[in-house]
Amino acid sequence: MNVYICRKEHFNAAHRLFNPKWSDAKNAEVFGLCASPNFHGHNYEIITTVCGQPHEDTGYVIDAKRLSQIIQKEVIVYLDHKNLNLDVEFMRGKLPSTENLAVAIWDILFLCLQKQEPSVKLYCIEIYETPKNFVRYYGK
Amino acid sequence: MNVYICRKEHFNAAHRLFNPKWSDAKNAEVFGLCASPNFHGHNYEIITTVCGQPHEDTGYVIDAKRLSQIIQKEVIVYLDHKNLNLDVEFMRGKLPSTENLAVAIWDILFLCLQKQEPSVKLYCIEIYETPKNFVRYYGK
Amino acid sequence: MNVYICRKEHFNAAHRLFNPKWSDAKNAEVFGLCASPNFHGHNYEIITTVCGQPHEDTGYVIDAKRLSQIIQKEVIVYLDHKNLNLDVEFMRGKLPSTENLAVAIWDILFLCLQKQEPSVKLYCIEIYETPKNFVRYYGK
Amino acid sequence: MNVYICRKEHFNAAHRLFNPKWSDAKNAEVFGLCASPNFHGHNYEIITTVCGQPHEDTGYVIDAKRLSQIIQKEVIVYLDHKNLNLDVEFMRGKLPSTENLAVAIWDILFLCLQKQEPSVKLYCIEIYETPKNFVRYYGK
Amino acid sequence: MNVYICRKEHFNAAHRLFNPKWSDAKNAEVFGLCASPNFHGHNYEIITTVCGQPHEDTGYVIDAKRLSQIIQKEVIVYLDHKNLNLDVEFMRGKLPSTENLAVAIWDILFLCLQKQEPSVKLYCIEIYETPKNFVRYYGK
Amino acid sequence: MNVYICRKEHFNAAHRLFNPKWSDAKNAEVFGLCASPNFHGHNYEIITTVCGQPHEDTGYVIDAKRLSQIIQKEVIVYLDHKNLNLDVEFMRGKLPSTENLAVAIWDILFLCLQKQEPSVKLYCIEIYETPKNFVRYYGK
Repeated sequence: MNVYICRKEHFNAAHRLFNPKWSDAKNAEVFGLCASPNFHGHNYEIITTVCGQPHEDTGYVIDAKRLSQIIQKEVIVYLDHKNLNLDVEFMRGKLPSTENLAVAIWDILFLCLQKQEPSVKLYCIEIYETPKNFVRYYGK
Repeated sequence: MNVYICRKEHFNAAHRLFNPKWSDAKNAEVFGLCASPNFHGHNYEIITTVCGQPHEDTGYVIDAKRLSQIIQKEVIVYLDHKNLNLDVEFMRGKLPSTENLAVAIWDILFLCLQKQEPSVKLYCIEIYETPKNFVRYYGK
Repeated sequence: MNVYICRKEHFNAAHRLFNPKWSDAKNAEVFGLCASPNFHGHNYEIITTVCGQPHEDTGYVIDAKRLSQIIQKEVIVYLDHKNLNLDVEFMRGKLPSTENLAVAIWDILFLCLQKQEPSVKLYCIEIYETPKNFVRYYGK
Repeated sequence: MNVYICRKEHFNAAHRLFNPKWSDAKNAEVFGLCASPNFHGHNYEIITTVCGQPHEDTGYVIDAKRLSQIIQKEVIVYLDHKNLNLDVEFMRGKLPSTENLAVAIWDILFLCLQKQEPSVKLYCIEIYETPKNFVRYYGK
Repeated sequence: MNVYICRKEHFNAAHRLFNPKWSDAKNAEVFGLCASPNFHGHNYEIITTVCGQPHEDTGYVIDAKRLSQIIQKEVIVYLDHKNLNLDVEFMRGKLPSTENLAVAIWDILFLCLQKQEPSVKLYCIEIYETPKNFVRYYGK
Repeated sequence: MNVYICRKEHFNAAHRLFNPKWSDAKNAEVFGLCASPNFHGHNYEIITTVCGQPHEDTGYVIDAKRLSQIIQKEVIVYLDHKNLNLDVEFMRGKLPSTENLAVAIWDILFLCLQKQEPSVKLYCIEIYETPKNFVRYYGK
């Protein structure tokens, strides 16, 4: 009897989309305003979904506060009020698109939950870059 | 050709998380503020998703008003302005976590739709306890 | 490694639900206020989800701006500030329910993306008629 | 000790902006897509604000349910699932802009509250035509 | 040059509307479901607005984090996961309507800001009981 | 008969709060994470309110599309996908707090509307830095 638990967190970050293998002109052509040299930013929202069985003693699949603490400690603290191109170790060498960000966060949280909360399984990472643009990743 | 129809309803309820097999101290340790003795409450939102084929004569899988009436009559009337620990027959003996609530509502609506609206099938019960904490249940 | 990209667009349209094979009385009985003769309308929101692999050079599955342009050009321009019963070629002869609208838009965008953006695949069309009534279609 | 009470209601309506004193061409030039001949529509939201003193016996300035009933009975029932150009007596001869709608609704509710609920005073009518376009009217 | 700074916080609480001077029957008649004996609850949202001049050195009228800390420490900690009828000292003897809650919070924050942050002045307390019912209080 | 027209626009920008007259340590102490050296960012929302009389011929105080075009051309184009510390001429030498941003935008739009749309008057600039932090400015 799987139930899916979703927890929304947010972080505010700067980024730009820029491929260092390309000229400035090509970057501007491909990424438009998103390649703007001095960065721009977003209020990102991230929804983490895990699944598992409700425990008989608590009624919880996982305490939402516990889930929140893991996401904060493993992910948000490295992203909030940071620059995704310059400050974030786990995005080093990757283009900071919302797609790549979702995959990178999945990889961190999948392993972390496997170790620390083996009774639940990561199901989906959903990231809103803006209310109109968002991505979902369910693992490979 | 399955189309999925979603209907959002809301109810305002009180609850607390408290396991009667445990001491007050253990309840406070596990549930934190959620075990607060005089209850707290939420504006719950519930999204019911059913699927089926659009009828040729109406373009509807099911009239959203009809779906709403069923959810109101079978579920909301027992929950709205109620205490989930004390007032709700179908939650008797269950910890009123959002997970357990979703499963209990699924069981009611699955049977009810099977009888009253056999051309549609319940697909998902999604409950928002707060805008940041929500659960989904798709049946066993 | 599939990532799902979602893009939200909106349009404002008038419609009524009316089956020309039925009498006015039967239409009023089945559709209630939705059969109101001089039309009513909605601020529709449409979320288009496509999936694919992030490109190594851009980090994009598809540029959200490109996806938006396709949806605008192929769908929104025919719906925005229009009457779904009278003005929309691809709804001709169909009851303008949200279900039928979602299926019709799926058929257009599925083919269009197949031709113009073969590296992504349409996954879901979700349409909000109101914040409380919405549908999803994932194809046949 | 004035406290302001706000109540949100919604209605779905069709309209077009069209000045019968002008040619079709001039209407199209001034109103653009809003003059589209077969109407378009919106999910309107209306927030009614009244002010007064909380009653000692109830803690209410006015029961929100009572306020809602008045707005439903005096205003919403004439607008919901209607055409603002053709169906609404109190908009007869007026261009159905959000501005004119707000003023007309103010005039109705101001008098009605004065008679039926003299202990409160209408303060503001706010109408959302879309989440991005909205108006407020505070009376003359 | 006054600028107005708004900070949104939330709390989850239980309450019921019940006047102890009245019979149960009269309470049920006046307050309806809101008098339900075992309480119900809400996800309350509270928006605190203060005004003042931006400081030359910071660009802030007041640091939003500082404002948040004051609201948390003086108000939220007494309300969150609590019962407004039984647990809250500053609501003792008052009907826990949203109106009375707004006035009580105003009185606390007005004095507190006057002492601790004399360069700003409390302008408005706005409380959402639900997304459709909310109140504003601007002081006497 | 004044009616108030509100138009919401958005822009995505990077910024940091940093006073060049202070040491890095003092900046970190005062601004915390907001002083993070490589910038962070937000999805800003800006609501511009103007007031005036509805025109007899159009029912408009001002065409919302016209108002939007002015805001886009005079303000948004300089802010969207930009760095508020480095890229924006009208913020040069000012700390890019939301307060200072609101005042600067007011000054631009007040003059611009005075010249280009003398029948309306700017009433309020409201900027959301996040859904929980926002400011309003009504002029001196």
